[in-house]
Amino acid sequence: MQAIDFWYSIGSTYSYLTVMRLDDYCEAEGISVNWRPFNVRAIMVEQNNVPFKDKPVKTAYMWRDIERRADLYGLPLAVPAPYPLEHLVLANQVALLGMQEGWGKSFTIASYRAWFVDGLPAGSDPNLSNSLKHAGQEPTTTIERAQSPAVIEALDRETRTCKALGVFGSPSFVVGREVFWGDDRLDDAIKWAKDRTLHS
Amino acid sequence: MQAIDFWYSIGSTYSYLTVMRLDDYCEAEGISVNWRPFNVRAIMVEQNNVPFKDKPVKTAYMWRDIERRADLYGLPLAVPAPYPLEHLVLANQVALLGMQEGWGKSFTIASYRAWFVDGLPAGSDPNLSNSLKHAGQEPTTTIERAQSPAVIEALDRETRTCKALGVFGSPSFVVGREVFWGDDRLDDAIKWAKDRTLHS
Repeated sequence: MQAIDFWYSIGSTYSYLTVMRLDDYCEAEGISVNWRPFNVRAIMVEQNNVPFKDKPVKTAYMWRDIERRADLYGLPLAVPAPYPLEHLVLANQVALLGMQEGWGKSFTIASYRAWFVDGLPAGSDPNLSNSLKHAGQEPTTTIERAQSPAVIEALDRETRTCKALGVFGSPSFVVGREVFWGDDRLDDAIKWAKDRTLHS
Repeated sequence: MQAIDFWYSIGSTYSYLTVMRLDDYCEAEGISVNWRPFNVRAIMVEQNNVPFKDKPVKTAYMWRDIERRADLYGLPLAVPAPYPLEHLVLANQVALLGMQEGWGKSFTIASYRAWFVDGLPAGSDPNLSNSLKHAGQEPTTTIERAQSPAVIEALDRETRTCKALGVFGSPSFVVGREVFWGDDRLDDAIKWAKDRTLHS
C-alpha cells in the first residue's frame, strides 16, 4: 500500500482538523503517513491565491465550518482563533527541524492546541516556547537553530517539491501523483492509497 | 425534518456533481430539497472572491478533483469543460423561470449534461435551445420571457436572499440558518436537516 505525504503549514486553519486526528485515524486504517511542513504562504502569494484576505463572508463561513467539523471529530475549539499568523514561516522552520530530529509532530500538535484552544498564535511566544518545551526541546537554542541557513533552505526545498507536485494549499495529501486538498479529502486520499480509486 | 434549500448557479463547475445526483440521493434519504438558482457571479465579484480567475494550478486541481468525484458517482464527464461561461446570467434567468413553471430541474440537468459531457457551454446555443426543448419548452419565446423585467428582478431578489444567509458560492445547501458550501458538504447538510448536528 502506498504511503500518504501530508503536506501542511502551521498557519492554515483547516489543518487544525487534520493535525489533531491524523495519526490515530491513519493507524486505524493501516496507512503510513509522512508529515511534511512547507511554506504555504509563499505559494499562495506567488499564485495570487490567498484564501481569506479581504473576504469577511467567506472567513466567517470558514470558522463556522471548522466549528461544526471540530464538534464532529470531538476536538476542543475556541473560534475565531488569531488569524493570519505573523510568524508562519518561523513556525514551519521549527516544525521542519523537529521532523528531522523526531519531535516535529509533538511540536506541531502542541502549537495547534495552544493556538485553537487557548487563543495563542502559533510561531510567537508564549506558544512557540511552550510548544517546544512540550516537545522536549530547549526553546532559545532550538529557535536559533531553526533559523539557520540549512533549515531555511530545507523549508524552501520542501516548498518547491510540493509545488512541483501541484500542491497549492494546506492541508494536502499526496498519494503517488494524486493531490487531495483539504481536510475533507482525507478519506479520499486513504481510499486512493489503498486501491488507487475512490470506489470502495 | 427540515427541508434543504439547494442554492446553485449554472456556471459553477462543482455544481455539476450535485445537480446530476441530488434528487435521487435526497429521495433515498427522505429529504425534501428546493432548487434555487441565483447569480453567483454577482456575489463573487462583489466579495472579491472569483475562485479560479488567473489561478491555473488551482484550476487544474479543480478539474482533476471533479473527474475523480464524477467517477465515484458514476457520472459521465469530458473535462475540462468550457469555462467560465459567457452567458451565466441568462442561463440562470431561464432556470429560475423554469423553477416557477415546473420545468427548471429538467432544463438545469440538460444544460449541465450538454456542457460537461458534450462540451457545449450552458446558456449559449446550441446548448440553451436544446436544453429548453428537452424540458418541453419552445426556445425563442422562452428565452425572451426569461429576460423580462420580472425574471431579472426575481433572480436579483433570490441572489440578495441567499447572500443575506451567508451564501457566497455554488453549490450551497442551507438548512435553517446553517450554510454548507460545496458538493462535498451535501452529506453534512443532510445530517443537519435530520438531527441538527453532524453526529450520526
